[in-house]
Amino acid sequence: MRRMSPPLHLADAKPSHIRAEVRAGRWSGHTSGLAERHVQGNVVILPQGAAGDFLRYCQRNPKPCPLLAVSEPGATGLPKLGADIDIRSDVPRYRVWRRGELVAEPTDVRELWRDDLVTFVLGCSFSFEQALRDEGLALRHVDEGKNVAMFRTSIPTVPAGPFSGPLVVTMRPLRAAAAIRAIQITSRFPDVHGAPVHLGDPALIGIHDLARPDYGDAVDVFADELPVFWACGVTPQAALAQARPEFCITHAPGAMLVTDLLNHQLAAF
Amino acid sequence: MRRMSPPLHLADAKPSHIRAEVRAGRWSGHTSGLAERHVQGNVVILPQGAAGDFLRYCQRNPKPCPLLAVSEPGATGLPKLGADIDIRSDVPRYRVWRRGELVAEPTDVRELWRDDLVTFVLGCSFSFEQALRDEGLALRHVDEGKNVAMFRTSIPTVPAGPFSGPLVVTMRPLRAAAAIRAIQITSRFPDVHGAPVHLGDPALIGIHDLARPDYGDAVDVFADELPVFWACGVTPQAALAQARPEFCITHAPGAMLVTDLLNHQLAAF
Repeated sequence: MRRMSPPLHLADAKPSHIRAEVRAGRWSGHTSGLAERHVQGNVVILPQGAAGDFLRYCQRNPKPCPLLAVSEPGATGLPKLGADIDIRSDVPRYRVWRRGELVAEPTDVRELWRDDLVTFVLGCSFSFEQALRDEGLALRHVDEGKNVAMFRTSIPTVPAGPFSGPLVVTMRPLRAAAAIRAIQITSRFPDVHGAPVHLGDPALIGIHDLARPDYGDAVDVFADELPVFWACGVTPQAALAQARPEFCITHAPGAMLVTDLLNHQLAAF
Repeated sequence: MRRMSPPLHLADAKPSHIRAEVRAGRWSGHTSGLAERHVQGNVVILPQGAAGDFLRYCQRNPKPCPLLAVSEPGATGLPKLGADIDIRSDVPRYRVWRRGELVAEPTDVRELWRDDLVTFVLGCSFSFEQALRDEGLALRHVDEGKNVAMFRTSIPTVPAGPFSGPLVVTMRPLRAAAAIRAIQITSRFPDVHGAPVHLGDPALIGIHDLARPDYGDAVDVFADELPVFWACGVTPQAALAQARPEFCITHAPGAMLVTDLLNHQLAAF
């Protein structure tokens, strides 16, 4: 999720061209700054048994786990997100997990494919951040070239099968009027975490030091600002780490699936 | 604006019946609790010269001065708000002002009517409070049978002619999740003050003691709550008091115009 300058040769490329470059092995890096008007997705691939549990987990926790698409078992396409997508090759870098242990970080997973694998693509805050920036709201972590600050909270998610764990949130400091506007804007995007889950006193959700995030980078919160907290896609990753499924493939951090969907197509109204 | 039990014989009456009772002189009290699903309006009546300035003032300050209707000069009807309305008799109690001095509190103003008078009806927070309560959000001042707490802020309104002055706000204490939901709900109601203008630290908008409101009654703000501030219809009243127009008629506090509009008809989406 680190914000970096996009690779020059892909800076203005269309999603299908980016995917073709990734598929051909010519780009295995981050996707931050690529096709910025398009939706990028977090990827989770699970065998059918665990997939049923994970689907219920997402359904019960839609704010941290907003599902953009779920494949048929064994299917490698995701036509809703792009006609040409082959999920075995179109993510720049994957992580392969066996019983919760990271065992490989390949650039494609054709060799590992199985007929019982189900692919989940989850929305990510890049989409709503684009909408916030389009409205002129400055985001400090973007301005400072940092990862957004992420925190484990005392709010439990609703379990399903082996999946459970705390809600993880991102934090963005905003002045009150900007916070109110950000609530309005992100409410329009339920498929990419939607409205904040909390704002103001961090201790009320079990966060004791804003200067020490559990993931990502700290940013200052000034005296005239409120910390505003959104549900975060690290929540399902934490649930996966805890569940330790027999086999699992995810995207590597920052190397996400670039889809054909436009961010504004996710707007609810 | 004090919340009181409605008079028994009008408790379930339709707006047109309430207006008929008021017009006949059989009810000259408050309208709180009457026809709760219907929009009630603040009333300001001004001679044509000052009316032009006041209209520009409302246009420039739509959050505190949301216009539901403006009459033709001299017209006594407001067909948009109710086919039978006669603004000279359908407000339970009026206040008559000459150069900013309160000179009378009659129950009708037929004797005072002039061909150059323009009527303004402004939305009021009763409508969005109904929407909040329908969602199960508890409002402390309602539960405690109090007036909502109102404060003059350091935020200036945009002047027009003789009309100017500070933004006046109402304050409702809410826990963070309820505050976020309240922002979503009230954003749907731009004609009755819309989204909050501030939340969190009151000092940032020039409010130094929440226990000492400028108007209305104080309520507790608990440690796990944020004070949430909405623009308030007392703002134009304060601007009128400051402008001291030659002649002006308003509703008496709490005795508002009951209209045929349903609160939910004001919802923007």
